Amino acid sequence: MSTNKTRKSANVQWGGRFASGPSEVMERINASIGFDQRLFAQDIAGSQAHARMLVARGILSSKDGDAIVIGLDTISQEIESGEFTFSTALEDIHMNIEVRLRELIGDAAGRLHTARSRNDQVATDFRLWVRDEIDAVDLQLKALQSELLGKAKTHAETIMPGFTHLQTAQPVTFGHHLLAYVEMFGRDRGRFADARARLNELPLGAGALAGTSFPIDRHAVAEDLGFDRPVANSLDAVSDRDFALEFMSAASISMTHISRFAEEIVIWCSDGFRFVKLSDAYTTGSSMMPQKRNPDAAELARAKAGRVFGDLLGLLTVMKGLPLAYSKDMQEDKEPVFDTADSLALALAATTGMVSDMEPMIENMRAASGKSYSTATDLADWLVRVADVPFRDAHGITGFVVKYAEAKGINLIDMSLEEMQAIDERITNDVFNVLSVEASVASRTSFGGTAPDNVRAAVNDARARFMGD
Amino acid sequence: MSTNKTRKSANVQWGGRFASGPSEVMERINASIGFDQRLFAQDIAGSQAHARMLVARGILSSKDGDAIVIGLDTISQEIESGEFTFSTALEDIHMNIEVRLRELIGDAAGRLHTARSRNDQVATDFRLWVRDEIDAVDLQLKALQSELLGKAKTHAETIMPGFTHLQTAQPVTFGHHLLAYVEMFGRDRGRFADARARLNELPLGAGALAGTSFPIDRHAVAEDLGFDRPVANSLDAVSDRDFALEFMSAASISMTHISRFAEEIVIWCSDGFRFVKLSDAYTTGSSMMPQKRNPDAAELARAKAGRVFGDLLGLLTVMKGLPLAYSKDMQEDKEPVFDTADSLALALAATTGMVSDMEPMIENMRAASGKSYSTATDLADWLVRVADVPFRDAHGITGFVVKYAEAKGINLIDMSLEEMQAIDERITNDVFNVLSVEASVASRTSFGGTAPDNVRAAVNDARARFMGD
Amino acid sequence: MSTNKTRKSANVQWGGRFASGPSEVMERINASIGFDQRLFAQDIAGSQAHARMLVARGILSSKDGDAIVIGLDTISQEIESGEFTFSTALEDIHMNIEVRLRELIGDAAGRLHTARSRNDQVATDFRLWVRDEIDAVDLQLKALQSELLGKAKTHAETIMPGFTHLQTAQPVTFGHHLLAYVEMFGRDRGRFADARARLNELPLGAGALAGTSFPIDRHAVAEDLGFDRPVANSLDAVSDRDFALEFMSAASISMTHISRFAEEIVIWCSDGFRFVKLSDAYTTGSSMMPQKRNPDAAELARAKAGRVFGDLLGLLTVMKGLPLAYSKDMQEDKEPVFDTADSLALALAATTGMVSDMEPMIENMRAASGKSYSTATDLADWLVRVADVPFRDAHGITGFVVKYAEAKGINLIDMSLEEMQAIDERITNDVFNVLSVEASVASRTSFGGTAPDNVRAAVNDARARFMGD
Amino acid sequence: MSTNKTRKSANVQWGGRFASGPSEVMERINASIGFDQRLFAQDIAGSQAHARMLVARGILSSKDGDAIVIGLDTISQEIESGEFTFSTALEDIHMNIEVRLRELIGDAAGRLHTARSRNDQVATDFRLWVRDEIDAVDLQLKALQSELLGKAKTHAETIMPGFTHLQTAQPVTFGHHLLAYVEMFGRDRGRFADARARLNELPLGAGALAGTSFPIDRHAVAEDLGFDRPVANSLDAVSDRDFALEFMSAASISMTHISRFAEEIVIWCSDGFRFVKLSDAYTTGSSMMPQKRNPDAAELARAKAGRVFGDLLGLLTVMKGLPLAYSKDMQEDKEPVFDTADSLALALAATTGMVSDMEPMIENMRAASGKSYSTATDLADWLVRVADVPFRDAHGITGFVVKYAEAKGINLIDMSLEEMQAIDERITNDVFNVLSVEASVASRTSFGGTAPDNVRAAVNDARARFMGD
Repeated sequence: MSTNKTRKSANVQWGGRFASGPSEVMERINASIGFDQRLFAQDIAGSQAHARMLVARGILSSKDGDAIVIGLDTISQEIESGEFTFSTALEDIHMNIEVRLRELIGDAAGRLHTARSRNDQVATDFRLWVRDEIDAVDLQLKALQSELLGKAKTHAETIMPGFTHLQTAQPVTFGHHLLAYVEMFGRDRGRFADARARLNELPLGAGALAGTSFPIDRHAVAEDLGFDRPVANSLDAVSDRDFALEFMSAASISMTHISRFAEEIVIWCSDGFRFVKLSDAYTTGSSMMPQKRNPDAAELARAKAGRVFGDLLGLLTVMKGLPLAYSKDMQEDKEPVFDTADSLALALAATTGMVSDMEPMIENMRAASGKSYSTATDLADWLVRVADVPFRDAHGITGFVVKYAEAKGINLIDMSLEEMQAIDERITNDVFNVLSVEASVASRTSFGGTAPDNVRAAVNDARARFMGD
Repeated sequence: MSTNKTRKSANVQWGGRFASGPSEVMERINASIGFDQRLFAQDIAGSQAHARMLVARGILSSKDGDAIVIGLDTISQEIESGEFTFSTALEDIHMNIEVRLRELIGDAAGRLHTARSRNDQVATDFRLWVRDEIDAVDLQLKALQSELLGKAKTHAETIMPGFTHLQTAQPVTFGHHLLAYVEMFGRDRGRFADARARLNELPLGAGALAGTSFPIDRHAVAEDLGFDRPVANSLDAVSDRDFALEFMSAASISMTHISRFAEEIVIWCSDGFRFVKLSDAYTTGSSMMPQKRNPDAAELARAKAGRVFGDLLGLLTVMKGLPLAYSKDMQEDKEPVFDTADSLALALAATTGMVSDMEPMIENMRAASGKSYSTATDLADWLVRVADVPFRDAHGITGFVVKYAEAKGINLIDMSLEEMQAIDERITNDVFNVLSVEASVASRTSFGGTAPDNVRAAVNDARARFMGD
Repeated sequence: MSTNKTRKSANVQWGGRFASGPSEVMERINASIGFDQRLFAQDIAGSQAHARMLVARGILSSKDGDAIVIGLDTISQEIESGEFTFSTALEDIHMNIEVRLRELIGDAAGRLHTARSRNDQVATDFRLWVRDEIDAVDLQLKALQSELLGKAKTHAETIMPGFTHLQTAQPVTFGHHLLAYVEMFGRDRGRFADARARLNELPLGAGALAGTSFPIDRHAVAEDLGFDRPVANSLDAVSDRDFALEFMSAASISMTHISRFAEEIVIWCSDGFRFVKLSDAYTTGSSMMPQKRNPDAAELARAKAGRVFGDLLGLLTVMKGLPLAYSKDMQEDKEPVFDTADSLALALAATTGMVSDMEPMIENMRAASGKSYSTATDLADWLVRVADVPFRDAHGITGFVVKYAEAKGINLIDMSLEEMQAIDERITNDVFNVLSVEASVASRTSFGGTAPDNVRAAVNDARARFMGD
Repeated sequence: MSTNKTRKSANVQWGGRFASGPSEVMERINASIGFDQRLFAQDIAGSQAHARMLVARGILSSKDGDAIVIGLDTISQEIESGEFTFSTALEDIHMNIEVRLRELIGDAAGRLHTARSRNDQVATDFRLWVRDEIDAVDLQLKALQSELLGKAKTHAETIMPGFTHLQTAQPVTFGHHLLAYVEMFGRDRGRFADARARLNELPLGAGALAGTSFPIDRHAVAEDLGFDRPVANSLDAVSDRDFALEFMSAASISMTHISRFAEEIVIWCSDGFRFVKLSDAYTTGSSMMPQKRNPDAAELARAKAGRVFGDLLGLLTVMKGLPLAYSKDMQEDKEPVFDTADSLALALAATTGMVSDMEPMIENMRAASGKSYSTATDLADWLVRVADVPFRDAHGITGFVVKYAEAKGINLIDMSLEEMQAIDERITNDVFNVLSVEASVASRTSFGGTAPDNVRAAVNDARARFMGD
């Protein structure tokens, strides 16, 4: 039985698709309007700045310049309001706007393309779009940090197990754990900011590839559009897609952070851990199992990393080995960037929402933090610090103590001093001051350590560094 | 100046997006209807087979079964004709169809979900879709091979340079060169066929993950839907996405072939080579430079490799380390597969069209094939074969001959016998029978070699193997 | 303070490295002997088969042929015993062996290269190597399946929770869970077998790219080396690396399986779950925390997926857009394949060892399997099957029952019949026969379901399919 | 015939490998000494700084501190001189050094590990290594820019075709073309510099994950090792590998530039183009075809992009979804970074060498630059600029002129004024001033344009920005 009903009209030459032949194939290959209409605001802003400069340099009359600027404003409103009809036959956003402009203002529209080409125009539009996106991502990352900081402050003393190898290692505080992500997302913001500074050069004025013979003023256009300066080499201006690759690199690294946190949330929500509760806003259940709360938002946030990595690798592969200046291959630059931007935005929103929404189950965390002799390091450190035992020896003594406690099925803190001293007589009663999870946590006062006072100070410090507080 | 007009209503918590908060975020995360509606035909076929089996096993009444099958047919027509309204609130294609079915046939619709779950249902739909796609790809690859074979036969004697390192190495025939791609695309077909055989097992009946207590007949459903057998393990049935990964692997390898051919076309169309002509059907020009023929179709076919690789890597990354059975991460499986299928289909159509369309510029190819002492190997082989010189010595003698010819600025065939013999006296007049590009090509009669008779035989052999001729 | 002591002698032109300039750079670029010496056995086998054929065809004297074959045997022994000194100046394994052969047998060595080139030689060697590797991987996968089957049989009735979203969903048996992996690794074996069949064609005899004018017999060499046939097109023979890509694709998919299992082991070993115990053989501890068992082997097996994916992507990218026939880029083919082979072999060994080693903690699994109302589906199915309630309605009723039980803090099986009937009066005493985890598991008798009898049958069936039992 | 001789001793359980079983497998999994010995200098520097701080804080005696520092110096010399014997049984570089230190100075060595753990130690070593590598890469990139600038200045007026779609588009100068790469490599340097600034925080002092109870001074150690500050959060300090990912991202983007240039060199060296000559230093030939110059260095530089992308993807995949803090998966971080560093260093050296070595074949470039009506844009621009024709109309008129010239088989500059005016009467004699390639190039005086004077100014500007001149 074939379910493949849609392909019955296939002709032989095309192996069953693209019944109308070459023209359909080429239209599909050439048309980018399906995705590049997202550049409309940037395309219009770029054209208006170009027109203003042409007027200022006497290349275009004021009258034509005004008509162009006003006409483009009209088009902008048409698109925003949904009145604009995009035409696939006109291939891309640039031609769609240009043809509409000619309808609106007549022949003057034909003068807008003076001293520019599609190559420098699209490079400019795309840079503007990525720049806007970076600004939006920065706001999202900052909002996420803000949620994390709020939660971290509230839970500066909430004890949970710190894991290595997903094994209980040492107690930490939940606030301290969240602050680790504040740092990661802070670095992400740094990467996006650096990418923004590097992309913020204007390609327009590079022409098709060689520059132009018109007496244009690229610096003026750059300033008008908020660029720091024009791109210094015309071939580079039209052939470079570093800014897209760097944006996707920064997004990929950010997605590793998001996915790590998401994995933790999935584990924390499992029956084995029950460290946090998420409300219905970020989980799905079923009418049959109303108690069930599947952490779908976390799983999706985790999974989005895959496609973002794929987008990056895809465009790296496209750009590899491409001779200068422009090749049609580069039309493949936009969809992965759009997909990355959308995926990152959604994953960040979901993560921010989950942080805001999650309630730590403090009792469970506390109970788990004392498992597996998590304060053994504290005993070893006490031996070094107080009893002046060399570290490697202290390590060995602690091993014997833990082995004894394990054999008896008790915790370190429940051993008697006599039992301790039977293993090493240098141990004194003072040791019991470091063997509780509270004492353990409170003792980690080194810079960056998990002691509650450190965590509170770190929240303030992070606010100053990241929030502008 | 900010061009980022669309984001002005952003609220603080969300960093400027998703103004409506959690509900909007979760809807975006959960809804797959935007892409999984492409599975509608498979979803309906699967449901109908399931209903028929439920009736046959007495789990469902004939009356309800008939109502379900007919109702689903109606929905199928509604979707095909464009009358069906998809609802994002209903999240996915399965719920959209189920809700519509309830509207059409009432409560009986509620019995269709007996003994199945969303998990085995979606796995079944998706396998059916990929299977259909493989069939369509096979037709396209076969059509491409057919074009290549036709062209290869026509040009069994058309001489062109064979390159290594893009340097002229030895003359070959254009037909022979095209046959290399017939082999590559033949292997691609083999890979897709193997993937098809491996995926052709039915997940339905695995339930959510553990199987079901209903007395279902999975073998009957398998047969009904053209599957070879049911998947043998219920956990595997719902958690496996090998079939998607294998499809994308095969597609990625096929894209390397397409991209290699596309690169050659771009080079062959360059001013430096001018080996082939493509018509307007597969190039773009400009009204200003009407002579210009940009090989856009080839460039796009080449570039599509990037996104297909990215799709594969993206899903590999998603599946890595995912515990059994189902996780929401797996909702990320469809978009990359759809994108790969579309990209491959388009690239294949463009390539087939270009093969059909391209005209070799025989004079240019012939002239280029004689450059760079391309028959030096023939001289060396002659020395071994006729004069019994050990190969490594023949190699050295040839080096001296070429050096001499190069210094004099002439071709090997234009040297005199005396000049030859001055270098090695074992050389006789017979050597001139092997130094033309025609003689060189004609002499490569080893199996798989480029001699025109071989090429013609290879065309026939390939037709038998690949075309069923 | 600079730690970068090794670079102080850098000269200016090279930016601080490669002090000896171009010659050092080119040597590093050209030399492959550092990695391709792994091909020595294949290179020698290929050369011997070539020599035998040359003799059979009268191209080489018996005397020279014998000298070559014996000389190569000597070299083989020298390499295996570690006596052979590899020379970087001789660049690759082929030249290292050829030069040594000349030392051993004199000028006859120079005749071995008759009618072949480096291009078809290296393609042959590499195919042979990958073919050997596939055979080794198949043995490893089979051994892993064997361990899984043994454990699955033993634990056909051992109940554990089946998860979706890492949330307890329905009880399954540990044996059933393990069988899911038997299927995955079975598909992996199928993919490697298909790859083997496809690669099993002989490139030798293709010459540099065009074939040869010597009257060679490629079919004889193919048979001698265990190939099914010669590659049909000489250009394809030297330029194709599909076999490497397909090997890496199959390995990548296999690594997703290994990594999923590894992730489960890490989770099962965590303090939250404690489902399995691994001995010291597959964990690491510390002298300080002797109770600690870090599942390092599982973590490494999981992590190796990353590099294998990277290897695949790397070679796909190298091959993309490469014009025929041979380019130096293709020298980058071996290292990723070697790395993938090594990583897969190690990950498989670790996984097999862990399966053999792991002891399920049956009590913990059993206790966890009853959490979260894991038999709610059984209640719903009972309503449909016994009380003839439409599935979607049964779903809703079950929701009410679970909600009630949750509010009371009891399990479904601990509710009274009256409480049940208060929610839906169609419920009878019979329902309690399906609400235990044992009853739930036993009821999943559909083909592929988790009922213990099914699991035992599935073990036998899998043995027949995969073990040749 | 089996060539797989090395595996005959395989036992059954392991599928033919790892004959010694679990211990061999775990040793292979755990041992990193095979690659992490590259960190020795960084490990020693880090330990010395740690010891100095412990002394300053009174945690360690001066005597012990001195012994440690001197002992480590000794070890450093032993390793540099090749006397040091690395032991696989000691697993990693840290234990190898620690054990040797104990041999040299006795028990004091055991105190070095006070207040630190393997986790913060390895993170510190690895950051130091990457930082050193970034410094070395920056020197290489600067050296490459220097070569490009020198060549660009020399060839500020050397005319070559500028390509789009590998089709002749507009004439540019060779110097201008090279300057495009100066910009690309300049951005690369910026990315590495940003990565350096971001990584330059000290992990040491974070302990295993929670900080330490010893009164350490992380700021002092940071200053000692040239870090800007300590990492602010201890969990982040030991679990973060952003610095490795960012280094590999920057390297990947840089490899796109290197590969684009390499592709151009391969094309420029082809028989079709013959734009540049490379000496034997960067090509390989054969004794048989001494005239042949295969651009191996360019091909390898191009191909290295693949493995660098693969390295990046590999580590992204490893880090995705890894819960805090340390998991063994992270041991997979070093090899891809080392491989990327080595590949990039080699590709940069090869590229720098080729730039220095390459001789443009000026006549060929000049001849090619006039093909395909490459000055058609100049005609159109003249119509707009001088005759005040709207751009889109000028575009159309130019199309007619080119069509006429093409039909007559002549160049634009060879048309008569009458012929021109027959197409559009606004054309005057002045137009011939813009139709030569020299005039075309000279007219592109917009900022960043290809006019020779611009190129010379751009060289100076770039020197100021990038060379510190």
